[in-house]
Order: sequence, then C-alpha cells, then structure tokens
Amino acid sequence: MSDAEASADFVQSLARGLAVIRAFDGDNADLTLSEVARRSVMPRAAARRFLRTLETLAYVRGRGDGTGRTYALTPRVLELGFSYLSALSLPEIVQPHLERLSREVDESVSAAVLDGPDIVYIARVPTRRIMSVRITIGTRFPAYATSLGRVLLAGLEEDAAAAAVSASAPEKLTDRTLTDPAALRQELARVGEQGWALVDGELEPGLRSVAAPLHGRSGAVVAALNVSTSSTRDSVEHLVEEYVPALLRTAGAIDAELRLV
Amino acid sequence: MSDAEASADFVQSLARGLAVIRAFDGDNADLTLSEVARRSVMPRAAARRFLRTLETLAYVRGRGDGTGRTYALTPRVLELGFSYLSALSLPEIVQPHLERLSREVDESVSAAVLDGPDIVYIARVPTRRIMSVRITIGTRFPAYATSLGRVLLAGLEEDAAAAAVSASAPEKLTDRTLTDPAALRQELARVGEQGWALVDGELEPGLRSVAAPLHGRSGAVVAALNVSTSSTRDSVEHLVEEYVPALLRTAGAIDAELRLV
Repeated sequence: MSDAEASADFVQSLARGLAVIRAFDGDNADLTLSEVARRSVMPRAAARRFLRTLETLAYVRGRGDGTGRTYALTPRVLELGFSYLSALSLPEIVQPHLERLSREVDESVSAAVLDGPDIVYIARVPTRRIMSVRITIGTRFPAYATSLGRVLLAGLEEDAAAAAVSASAPEKLTDRTLTDPAALRQELARVGEQGWALVDGELEPGLRSVAAPLHGRSGAVVAALNVSTSSTRDSVEHLVEEYVPALLRTAGAIDAELRLV
Repeated sequence: MSDAEASADFVQSLARGLAVIRAFDGDNADLTLSEVARRSVMPRAAARRFLRTLETLAYVRGRGDGTGRTYALTPRVLELGFSYLSALSLPEIVQPHLERLSREVDESVSAAVLDGPDIVYIARVPTRRIMSVRITIGTRFPAYATSLGRVLLAGLEEDAAAAAVSASAPEKLTDRTLTDPAALRQELARVGEQGWALVDGELEPGLRSVAAPLHGRSGAVVAALNVSTSSTRDSVEHLVEEYVPALLRTAGAIDAELRLV
C-alpha cells in the first residue's frame, strides 16, 4: 500500500470495487464469487458485497444459484469509459486514426469541418510538403475545389450546398477547377451517392486527394477525412484502388467512436 | 434510496465513487470540486475524498491549484468499459455492425472465419433468401469459391493459402468457378492488395457478393464480412460502387472495436 493509499482521504472501498470490475476480461467473462475474490485479491465476504453493490447498480448481472452462481459485467460498464471518450473533442478523437492511416498509406492525411463556404482543417498528419500553400490547423480553403469540401457539401441539403458554393464565387484556381454551378451540383450528388470524393488538381496543379465523410451519432456529416498526394507520385487509379479503401475503413472506425459519444 | 441500496451489503462509497466518474461528460470534461459535488449530488468533503482516491488510482488528473483546480478523467477510465468489451465474443462484437450494414444496403450480410479450407459463418443478418442452400451460423463453404473465403485466404501467408486451396480440391461448382491454382493465387494477391473481394456466381449461379477482412489487435485477419445479393437485382458495378464503400466503413468500425479488446 502506497502512502497515498494509506491516507485517511483514500476511499478503500472505491478502489476495491473498481478492482472487482477489472477482475473480468475476455478470458474471464463469467466468474464465480471465489474467482472474483481471488482475481481481485480480497476476502470472499468483501467480494460478495462489491458484487451485490455492482449488481444493484446494474453494472454486473448474476446467473444461477448457490456456489454455481456466476457474475458478468453488463454493457452499462461502458458508460464509465464513455464518460471519458465523450469528453474528447472531435480533433482528439480523430488524431490517432489520422496517424494510423498516414502510416498505412505513407501520405499526408487531414480532417476538416465546413464553416460557411470554406473548409477549416481541424487535424493533420503531414508526410511530405506537396502544396505550395502550407496547411496547418485552422487553414481554410474554398470547399467547392477540395475533396474535403466536396464530401462536406454533399452532406448538406441541396439548397444549403448550392448557397455555400455560390457564396464562394467559384473561380478557375487551375484550368481543371469545376466552377459551373450545374456541374458542381451534379458532382456533389455523385459524391453523396458514392460516399467519397476525388479531386484532381482543381485547387492547385498536381495536387490529388480523396476524401470521405465522418458522421455524428445522428448520422449527419460532421467532418471529413482525406488523403492527399501529388500527381507525379500517384495515379488516379492508385488513389481509388489503394487509398479509398483505407480511407473508408478509417472513416468507419472514427464513426464507430463518434457513435459512442 | 431503494431497499437494495439501504441493505447492509450495499457499499455506498463504491456507488458514490462511480457517480463521480459519471459526473464528467462531453460538455463537462473539466470540473471543479464544487461542480463534481453538485453534479454527483454529494457534500464537497465527500466529493474531495472520491476525487483524491480516483486521482491516486490514476483515473482522474487534477490541474491548477486552490479553488481554480479542475479535474478530468484520464484514458485509464476506458479500462473499466473495456473489461466489458473484451469479455464479448467476436460474434457479439460483430452482430450490431451487421445489423446496421444490412439496414443501410438492404441486403443480407454475414461474417465468417476460416477453418482449414472452409469458411464457417459466425454471424448473419439475412434479408432475402437468394441461395438455394440455407445459410445459418455454423454453415460451411469451401473458402476458394466465396468472397468471404477469398479475403480470409488473402490474409494468410502465401504457402498456407495455397495449402488451404489445394486441401479443398477446387472444382467447377458453376461454370464461372476459378479452380486453377495459379489463377487463384493471383486473385488472392490482388484481393490482399485491394483490401476486398468480389465473387460473381462462382459458388452458385446468380449469387454475387463482396467481402472485406476484419483485423485483430495485431493486424492479422481474424474474420471477414460480406454483403450478398443476386445478379438479377444488382449489377457488379452496383456492388462495387454502393456496397463496397459501406462494407469497408463497417469493417473499419469493427476493427476499431477489435483493437480495443
């Protein structure tokens, strides 16, 4: 027992109750009272009181009777962990996934949200400097000319997307930039249907990226995730065949966490 | 207070300590002592003892001094929830994701694992009966002729995959079935690279499916997930454009949970 644990302020029964919860794991999903007592290193009488308390609070359920009675955790235990997860901000949730994806594809990956007609970067893992413009958290670009913006706009109602596009007053940033409102509307419909967007040199010559939407608990698009590379390094086919699957898997993983919070 | 909570067996300080953890959430990630006391409905002196105990156990960290001192949960709180998650079996983890995917694509979805040269279904959400053979949990098919099997075989070392294929003694189940060892080896390499598999009428005429691998914590392929439909209802393009993105997102979501357990 450490000094802190010996202090009068230390609530021993809270520490022991948490130890009872931690006594359960994948190989020990159903435990008898004796097993709980042994794994959490306490007398059976104490383990019984903690199990009964956790059962009353619906964190544990018991099955069977007498010495054969076993206990298991209930999904309610997740609430405790989710108190932590739900306290994370969107960039904090996204960041470790961006790092994993960046290692997998060995390219820069970013996440952005929509702010009016612009995208704003909220997280980024850069690998190489491929753009003449440096991107950091807070950098803004017009949504209509970026893959991140296309999936974010595709998540809006058609009227709201059209308003955001016209508020940007689309211009030919490169000779490939889509600026015609009807062509942009059609592309946004296609992106919404397809679930991801590819933009090839429309923001800056030679910059290629693919993006996928991130969804909140309600299913609404709350942010977007992309992989960006250069036309000299990767073909459009390579982006579609190699990066899009990894991007969609990562987006799904982030959505799974966002559904919990 | 309920009768159970009034019982001599009920450990009040465990219940109150857990209430302190639950006092934190997304809108209340950093709380002062007074805020914790108010949100968990207990005197400040009690809240202080629980916070100090949780701090000693590294479930909470404090920042700042005096009345400005705030507390937040640490990632260690996740361990409590993960005690529950890690006690779930693979089918239990997969099932809610299968249900969500099946609603999204309105088609049958399944998960399977590899057992020697066969796939074995471990979870399934059927929508329509499209196969002449009824599929239930435990149903087996030769891996080489199914999309689930192709992604599972692609997750093996090349020698092990070749051995599994030759143990099945591939035969023409339909006139489309790939049976040539070299052609199968090449397809498995392609599937491994691409991250998903499409099989069109190789197990049974008119049955089309797409599958993606599921990964355990180490990154190894531990199971596979598919969407199956009929050639009369959906074109190959429809499977690739509509179902593959949803499938990959779902696989990513499941992988995120499998990484936690």
